[in-house]
Formats: sequence, C-alpha cells, structure tokens
Amino acid sequence: MDALAPDSIHALSAAERAAIYRCIFTRRDVRSQFRPDPIPNAVLARILQAAHHAPSVGFMQPWDFILVRDPQVKKRLHAAFQAANAEAADMFAGERQSAYRALKLQGILEAPLGLCITCDRGRAGATVLGRTHQPEMDIYSTVCAVQNLWLAARAEGIGVGWVSILRYQDLRAALGIPEEILPIAFLCLGYVSEFLPAPELESAGWRKRLPLGDLVAFDRWHGSEPDDGLLPLLEEDAVCSSK
Amino acid sequence: MDALAPDSIHALSAAERAAIYRCIFTRRDVRSQFRPDPIPNAVLARILQAAHHAPSVGFMQPWDFILVRDPQVKKRLHAAFQAANAEAADMFAGERQSAYRALKLQGILEAPLGLCITCDRGRAGATVLGRTHQPEMDIYSTVCAVQNLWLAARAEGIGVGWVSILRYQDLRAALGIPEEILPIAFLCLGYVSEFLPAPELESAGWRKRLPLGDLVAFDRWHGSEPDDGLLPLLEEDAVCSSK
Repeated sequence: MDALAPDSIHALSAAERAAIYRCIFTRRDVRSQFRPDPIPNAVLARILQAAHHAPSVGFMQPWDFILVRDPQVKKRLHAAFQAANAEAADMFAGERQSAYRALKLQGILEAPLGLCITCDRGRAGATVLGRTHQPEMDIYSTVCAVQNLWLAARAEGIGVGWVSILRYQDLRAALGIPEEILPIAFLCLGYVSEFLPAPELESAGWRKRLPLGDLVAFDRWHGSEPDDGLLPLLEEDAVCSSK
Repeated sequence: MDALAPDSIHALSAAERAAIYRCIFTRRDVRSQFRPDPIPNAVLARILQAAHHAPSVGFMQPWDFILVRDPQVKKRLHAAFQAANAEAADMFAGERQSAYRALKLQGILEAPLGLCITCDRGRAGATVLGRTHQPEMDIYSTVCAVQNLWLAARAEGIGVGWVSILRYQDLRAALGIPEEILPIAFLCLGYVSEFLPAPELESAGWRKRLPLGDLVAFDRWHGSEPDDGLLPLLEEDAVCSSK
C-alpha cells in the first residue's frame, strides 16, 4: 500500500484500499457453508444497490433480479441441477470423473436465498450507445452487476455461489422467464459458517492458480516487457497474503 | 450499516463495508478526465492481481492481459474507434444523433495505459467443470475479472473507461490477437483530474437511472413481494448517498 503515485489524490485511503483488496481476495464461490439464517431486508437492499450501480453500456441498466425463497421453486431448480450434473459428470473419464462426483457444486436447498439475474436486451431500444460493434456489451454489463453484488455480499459476510450446472430451459421454466429475456446467473446467497481460505477447486487439486506473470503481455499478444519492471512484482503475489 | 444479522461474524467491519460501497458507488466509466502520469508498477501489479482473483468457472482463469503503452498501437486503436464511431453515430437520427456526437466516448490517446483483457476458451481443455450447460461461463468469468480490476483501480484513484466502439477485427489486428482467443474488453486506464459525481450519460440526459424497485421480483418473473418489506428500502436509495 506504499506505492501511490504523488498525484493520486482521488485514491481511497490506505485503510479503504486494504478493505477493497481484502474483499476481493477473500471472496469465494460458496457451495457448502450456507447457514439458514435469513438475510435482513436492509442488507439485501444494499447488495442489490451495489449490483444496480454496475457499469452498463449506454447506461442501459439491462438487469432484473428475481429473488427466490419459495421452497417449491428451489426444489425444482435443485432437480434441474441434478439432471444437468449427471450429464456433466459423464463427460469426465476415470479418476477425473470420481473427483468430479466428490465435489459439492451448489447449495440451492440450503441457501436461504436464490437470485436470478437476467438481461433485457431490448430495454433501451434497438440501437444502444456502445453496443453496435460489440453486441454482447449488455450481457457483459449484467455480469458486472453480478460481480458488484458478489463483492458487496462478501463485505456483508454473505456467501454467494454461482450455479452454472443448469440448463437454461429449466431455469426459464422454473422462474417463468419470457423468451426475450436472457438469464445470465443463478446465485445462491446466505450467511456462512466460514469463508474457505482458498477456492475449493484449488484446494481439491482440480486446477492450480496460474502464475499471473504468464498471463501479462506488452503492446501485443505475447509481447515481452520492454523494461522488466512489472513482471517481478507479479511473481511476488504480495497483495494476496490475505487470500 | 446498522442492519447486520447477529450471526454475520464473517462480515467486514463497518468501516471496511463503507469502503466497499464507496468504491462501488463512486466508480465511473472515464473518458475525459485522464492525466498523463504513468501508473507505478507496484500499483499496476495490485490491480492486475485483483483481476486475477475473479471467480472463474472450473477455476479456469481464462484471462490474459495485454498492456498497451506504445503510441503507435494507441494511434491505430484510436483510428479504429473513429471509424466505428462514425458508423455508430449514423444509427441515431435527428437530435439524438447531435447529442451522440457531442459526447466524448473514449480516452485512448490521453490515457497513459491501454489494457485488453481476453478469454482463452481452450485453456482448460474441451470439457470444463460448470461450462457444459452454460457455455458462456468462461466469457462471464473474464468479465468478472474486468469488474474486479475496475473497482481496485477506483480504490487506487485510477480511472477506467471501457471502449466498446471498436470492431473486434480491428482490435485483433492492432494487438495480434490469434483467432482462437476472444477479446472481451479494451480499457483505458490512468489517474484522473476528478471522478464525476454521476455517470456521464446520466448527467448528459442520455438515459435516467432506473428505480431499482422496478427491477426486483419475487419467486418468478415479475412476481410480487409477499410481505412488502424490501421494496420500500430500495426506494430510499439510502446507501447511495456517496454516489
């Protein structure tokens, strides 16, 4: 936290910056640690406002939020997960399939709240500022809202798990989402018994954290660093001690 | 900040939570306020680490980062923007076109740093945990990395602008991005003279902030609230006073 540029008068304070990094590095995809306690409406209002203040192409704000508390709806979504997960498991072979089957990948029934975030591509008419040449931008805006909500939830002590092992048609049917609306994310939310110290798939040996230095290039794809000043700092992984 | 659930022992402190919300609500898409001062490598390392700690489907970490400082590459990207922007302006009619043309929509040449974030869909093989039924999940993971970086940059006093008025083919050509890699975002980064109090498109009257209460439903699409506890809190817009 010592390397502020002399002119960065608009930076948050050192303590505030540390809070942002703590939140980012300790955020987890939660599947197994949900507690049943309900999320108070005041807290829920804050994290929804955080989502609503995501960037959006052409200030389109294309998102909608469907909060799911009805046990019957949750059961239906859980059944849809089970059907999809059986198909997904079959795509892996041998030990990899055993490893896959040993993972718990969602907390639909245990989490007190489900949340579907959708994208209404027609919200601002056919022509949207900034979407003409990159037509996916409204979808990307909606994903930014997911990530804002995820971080605000972490700050509140609320775990979030993104359940992507669901057929879109099942999600649409369970929630009555009309054809013209794109479901982007189905999330499980709730207070947790703990935030694990590392991502579960990393701890389980499913995949390793990649060295960040291998992912950074200069001026063009795979372009090497002109002055070798940045890459050593990426190796240190210094800011991630709270991970 | 008064409505923590009694069991939310894993929440960040009240001061830390306030920092997260301040960061989220004062983040802007910056086009006009860039200062030329370079971003120190130590700061850049932190915000890239923030991006690298985004959630990713199957712990795939599909992102790469191309940092652009070469003035020739920036000029080429700026020319690509101008060509695309001329086409985009023509899609609006009358007063809306005049309003569009009056907006400054990028800071490619003024910002000291350009950053292209890409998605390598083949990074973890053909079958990826969590991507079988929602094949866009790796792209969404990459967008989460964009948003993590955007918030970390805001905390550091660094403005970010997402330039989407670019043809993908021009972006690929300028940066030598191979066919199998998807460019997701081209960002401009730099310290700023100010973070504007509200989104520029809102201040310019292009579009209004939507009432969040209109975007929240219960248990199904457009489902109404069973107990009317949440919606009044969304109207208050209480946490957004720092917006």
